[in-house]
Amino acid sequence: MPLIAHPQSMPFSQPLPLQSGAAIRDYALSYETYGQLNADKSNAVLICHALNASHHVAGVYEGQPRSEGWWDNMIGPGKPVDTDRFFVVGVNNLGSCFGSTGPMHVNPDTGRVYGADFPVVTVEDWVDAQARLLDALGIRQLAAVMGGSLGGMQALCWSLRYPERVRHAVVVASAPNLTAENIAFNEVARRAIVTDPDFHGGHFYAHGVVPKRGLRIARMIGHITYLSDDVMNEKFGRQLREGIDPNVPPPGRPKAEGAPSGGSEDTPVPSVGAYKYSTQDVEFQIESYLRYQGDKFSEYFDANTYLLITRALDYFDPARAHGGSLQQALAQTQARFLLVSFTTDWRFAPARSREIVQALLDNKRAVSYAEIDAPHGHDAFLLDDARYLNVVRAYFARIAAEGAAA
Amino acid sequence: MPLIAHPQSMPFSQPLPLQSGAAIRDYALSYETYGQLNADKSNAVLICHALNASHHVAGVYEGQPRSEGWWDNMIGPGKPVDTDRFFVVGVNNLGSCFGSTGPMHVNPDTGRVYGADFPVVTVEDWVDAQARLLDALGIRQLAAVMGGSLGGMQALCWSLRYPERVRHAVVVASAPNLTAENIAFNEVARRAIVTDPDFHGGHFYAHGVVPKRGLRIARMIGHITYLSDDVMNEKFGRQLREGIDPNVPPPGRPKAEGAPSGGSEDTPVPSVGAYKYSTQDVEFQIESYLRYQGDKFSEYFDANTYLLITRALDYFDPARAHGGSLQQALAQTQARFLLVSFTTDWRFAPARSREIVQALLDNKRAVSYAEIDAPHGHDAFLLDDARYLNVVRAYFARIAAEGAAA
Repeated sequence: MPLIAHPQSMPFSQPLPLQSGAAIRDYALSYETYGQLNADKSNAVLICHALNASHHVAGVYEGQPRSEGWWDNMIGPGKPVDTDRFFVVGVNNLGSCFGSTGPMHVNPDTGRVYGADFPVVTVEDWVDAQARLLDALGIRQLAAVMGGSLGGMQALCWSLRYPERVRHAVVVASAPNLTAENIAFNEVARRAIVTDPDFHGGHFYAHGVVPKRGLRIARMIGHITYLSDDVMNEKFGRQLREGIDPNVPPPGRPKAEGAPSGGSEDTPVPSVGAYKYSTQDVEFQIESYLRYQGDKFSEYFDANTYLLITRALDYFDPARAHGGSLQQALAQTQARFLLVSFTTDWRFAPARSREIVQALLDNKRAVSYAEIDAPHGHDAFLLDDARYLNVVRAYFARIAAEGAAA
Repeated sequence: MPLIAHPQSMPFSQPLPLQSGAAIRDYALSYETYGQLNADKSNAVLICHALNASHHVAGVYEGQPRSEGWWDNMIGPGKPVDTDRFFVVGVNNLGSCFGSTGPMHVNPDTGRVYGADFPVVTVEDWVDAQARLLDALGIRQLAAVMGGSLGGMQALCWSLRYPERVRHAVVVASAPNLTAENIAFNEVARRAIVTDPDFHGGHFYAHGVVPKRGLRIARMIGHITYLSDDVMNEKFGRQLREGIDPNVPPPGRPKAEGAPSGGSEDTPVPSVGAYKYSTQDVEFQIESYLRYQGDKFSEYFDANTYLLITRALDYFDPARAHGGSLQQALAQTQARFLLVSFTTDWRFAPARSREIVQALLDNKRAVSYAEIDAPHGHDAFLLDDARYLNVVRAYFARIAAEGAAA
């Protein structure tokens, strides 16, 4: 029987002070919980999400068998993060477009939709909001906080901001901050959105339009950076749209977050092996894949949320307040750590995880580190890789054993 | 005294058959020549350009001291490709926007501007057009054909299409075809242009507008792929727009193609070390740099040309007609080769050059190969790196000595 997920919403009336100096009040956080909180409330695990994800981490919704949570291969009964042992909390961040208060909601100060006036939120702000949610759930200390990519930044931030509330931090495919290249890709995506005439300065809701052109471009750029060069060549290579190159078999399309099982367009099949000689038609399969991803994303993702989340990524930099020293920044941690990176991840390369590992070791913290030789690039953190899942499984088994011993 | 360049134009009335099956007639090619063609016409060197360049390869225009050609550090009197010894020809390709017949010119068949109806041109078509230009200049055989990036593809194509007309092919920072990731970046750039409402299906000239939004995005994406992650971190890192991070000195901006000596915006200086907490303002220097590059490019580059040139890149694949075997494809070459790649070039990585080298060696061709340890990414092929320039200088000295001995 599949795990059935029940989305909930927690309202907060007390203003939340933000890093920018602004505050947000009368907001709500969407969340889900899986498993049972034990008597001494020591088995809670918080899962933090990345750009395109939500509080719906595991399980399916009643009557919707294909509505698996985004980390359902990782979290659930008998899974690496075992909900038979742990009480797992998934939470949607402020500013998102999947349920928690965000740019498409009404600003209580003005009575109008926030739009571009939604306050800029940071990883620190998200962590503060998550801490309040845990307060409301009666959870004083987390057995673990865990996330991948931007979610890993939140896990790291938890260990800095609430050191006494985190026993373990699990930071997957993440980085201590963005590189110039990371920021550059974010900026191009933002410019594509902001310069879309349908963006209307972020107040497009009132115009009854969506800046889909910009969202499509943003998502296409994102997808390129999520995949490795190798896996792109393996999945798509130089295959033409209709798979007509007689030299190479049609590519398989492994399951990946958001990867379609196939395109949906019906285009006429040209003569075998022929280029169409067109600058605007789809010629190569990689083009079809990216257009499909962009189209799909533009149907459901909020443009203002995209700006907010990429900016939170840009801003995250715990070493900044310590003269650039990550070692000094991490001196305040008390948790034990598991870091995982993937060899072909060029977005958040293993070297970036190693910076965190080194800074923790320099502080004599307990750190486990696994560098997984996986071909899938950044996306690997969401995929089924036995070594990766086993590393996480073993780590959480140890946490469970600690809890039982304590 | 600087080398003075004199742009010229050669008209062609005879239709040029294209790979697509179409033809183009009554076209003209802009070109420049430097140095003197010797009596037996054996010292001609053809320079092929990449995406954002032209026939203006070397020297300056009369009275315009800052109008240096795009490869002026490489080509000129006493330079690695020495115009005191060689007769160098720079040519602007068909479909470009720098003088040769392109999308903004009038289609003689319709009397209207080509726009999006300009025929799709390929690397092979460009080479054929260049061959006709050489015919008109009375040059039967080239001492060398040389190019970087897409220009290198043309040099390689020359050695295949006109093997008896090429004594040496110099292929710099190039590849035997594009990878899926290369095509993906091209496709995102094209989608940004095509979906700009000012594109008007490619017939924007008639509307008196230019799809600048799309061109800006295209150029920003391009610039990210031209630079290495390392050089981006070194030049920009996480520096804020105003260089206010007290921990790091303001970055120097080395001379690079199109790199500005500084931004032009005047924005108020915020308090030291503070983030602005804005999703749309420039916050990091890398954002300012990319926006500047995008703005500048959108002022002069033609959108239809961008589509055509990126498509020519996508299509180039000499192995395709040989069942995917590059070795078989290169069996028809007769030239000797110099290949150069740069270690941090992730657009056309050294491994791609090595594929060409291996395929040539498998055919027992004479190949020199230099892999230059340079930090600048793909852009390195345009920059002053002493080892790189010396490799090319030595190679051309050898060619000159051959010519003298012959």
